[in-house]
Amino acid sequence: MSVVYDRVALIGLGLIASSMFWAMKRAGLAGEVTGYARSAETRETARRIGLCDRVCDSAAEAVDGADLVVLCVPVGAMGAVAKEIGPMLKPGATVSDVGSVKRAVIDAVGPHIPAGVHFVPGHPLAGTEHSGPESGFAELFDNRWCLLVPVTGSDPQAVARLRTLWEGMGSYVDEMDPDHHDLVLAVTSHAPHLIAYTMVGVADDLRRVTDSEVIKYSAAGFRDFTRIAASDPTMWRDVFLTNKDATLEILGRFTEELFALQRAIRTGDGDHLHAYFTRTRAIRRGIIEAGQDTDAPDFGRVKRDG
Amino acid sequence: MSVVYDRVALIGLGLIASSMFWAMKRAGLAGEVTGYARSAETRETARRIGLCDRVCDSAAEAVDGADLVVLCVPVGAMGAVAKEIGPMLKPGATVSDVGSVKRAVIDAVGPHIPAGVHFVPGHPLAGTEHSGPESGFAELFDNRWCLLVPVTGSDPQAVARLRTLWEGMGSYVDEMDPDHHDLVLAVTSHAPHLIAYTMVGVADDLRRVTDSEVIKYSAAGFRDFTRIAASDPTMWRDVFLTNKDATLEILGRFTEELFALQRAIRTGDGDHLHAYFTRTRAIRRGIIEAGQDTDAPDFGRVKRDG
Repeated sequence: MSVVYDRVALIGLGLIASSMFWAMKRAGLAGEVTGYARSAETRETARRIGLCDRVCDSAAEAVDGADLVVLCVPVGAMGAVAKEIGPMLKPGATVSDVGSVKRAVIDAVGPHIPAGVHFVPGHPLAGTEHSGPESGFAELFDNRWCLLVPVTGSDPQAVARLRTLWEGMGSYVDEMDPDHHDLVLAVTSHAPHLIAYTMVGVADDLRRVTDSEVIKYSAAGFRDFTRIAASDPTMWRDVFLTNKDATLEILGRFTEELFALQRAIRTGDGDHLHAYFTRTRAIRRGIIEAGQDTDAPDFGRVKRDG
Repeated sequence: MSVVYDRVALIGLGLIASSMFWAMKRAGLAGEVTGYARSAETRETARRIGLCDRVCDSAAEAVDGADLVVLCVPVGAMGAVAKEIGPMLKPGATVSDVGSVKRAVIDAVGPHIPAGVHFVPGHPLAGTEHSGPESGFAELFDNRWCLLVPVTGSDPQAVARLRTLWEGMGSYVDEMDPDHHDLVLAVTSHAPHLIAYTMVGVADDLRRVTDSEVIKYSAAGFRDFTRIAASDPTMWRDVFLTNKDATLEILGRFTEELFALQRAIRTGDGDHLHAYFTRTRAIRRGIIEAGQDTDAPDFGRVKRDG
């Protein structure tokens, strides 16, 4: 694979940025990659583990001369970063981001992008429950979707070039309208995360069942909720605050259905429960056929000790 | 390991029974293992794949002369099976089960156990999203907890012998009171399953987001819900109908918390959200330290295609 951008700047050095760096290196997609993080400790760690070709002490220095700038900070911090780097951007450069919400990022970042600079928001649908500069790995985006969300007037060539970069990092790429993106993600990600956080909080808070019991017996289903609920608190706070309407809409639908199922339990309506539980199996088959999960039994996650 | 029971009968030949068979064989824990399933097709499959030393065409035949009989049918079917086999049980034999609910099983099965036969209910906290006679494997119980729930008058020696069997199949064993068991499982398993089923149903039902979008972009969190929601519909219908009170209590607490978080989203209370999301991380760490999950990033589940 050949170089797609001579100079790439990563602003924010967490799970996504660090995985992008290793994925770009793996495929030789970038000439030089600079990086900046607000925390001195993160910059220190990045230098120690060789994350980025050059770690800079300011965002302005990192974006100086960059052909592509990728904002990899929590959604709530995007606007301030864009305001700071806006005046330093090279004419003809592309600015993108990796935020989980798109309408709010477009509204916050868009006004700070000068004429002659291309703004192409993006969102790689990939992640793990880990965060920070040491959590990244080159394979994170392999076989996963990255959604590009071009804004009005996005230059088709700039979009195509960014697509080439993401494909080079292993992703499939789709384009989507920002409001539809925010609704789709409310369903596939934001509502499930809030629900998982809630359930784990309830378990933690229940006086009659000890935390030690919850922990020992978690493999019966709860365990998966705890992995989701171990995700970065700042990132997720920002997601919910900036994708408020779509998230609340989906949670409203969820509560309606949950109440209907609770009523079926209370009244002993086994047919309703059985029909509901049968219908949900089809979606699972679709996900396996689409290569977005494996059919291997979940149990394989823990190695036997002895 | 030496033989714990000369003759074991497995009634019902799904995921748990078939895994028990392979786990007993692996460690040489049983002399002969007989099996029975109501469906002729399941019995046929069992014979074809060598599941059980002898597959019988009636439950009565399977339990004839057995030292241990394990009921591995859905919770709602336990009473009828117990009634059928009760008169055939050998004096001194032990009857156990693997149901996910214990109070209801004790009430349904207990009356059919004749004097001189030991009744020691049990529940291995292990499973996968697959079901049926071909889904079992010897390692299912390794490193997982099995809860024994002795009833009033359970013979300590019979309990100890059953514990030896489960330990031989790879499990850790705890004893618990039936009502506490049902509450703990409502938290760690039953409520999470209903919530996952609900969320997958909502996604499937939403007109403005297509199933194809839900499937493609599921890796963002939703995917884990679909695995849980792919579990056996009959088994889960019975669980909710027979552990009604504890499940509804936990769901009530869940809804309260969910509403509090929804209100925090609506009013923009980021501090509340951040504090909640930070607290839930501790439970995750406990689960990993207890060996009930791995810290490997979740992403490793799908192999790279090319």
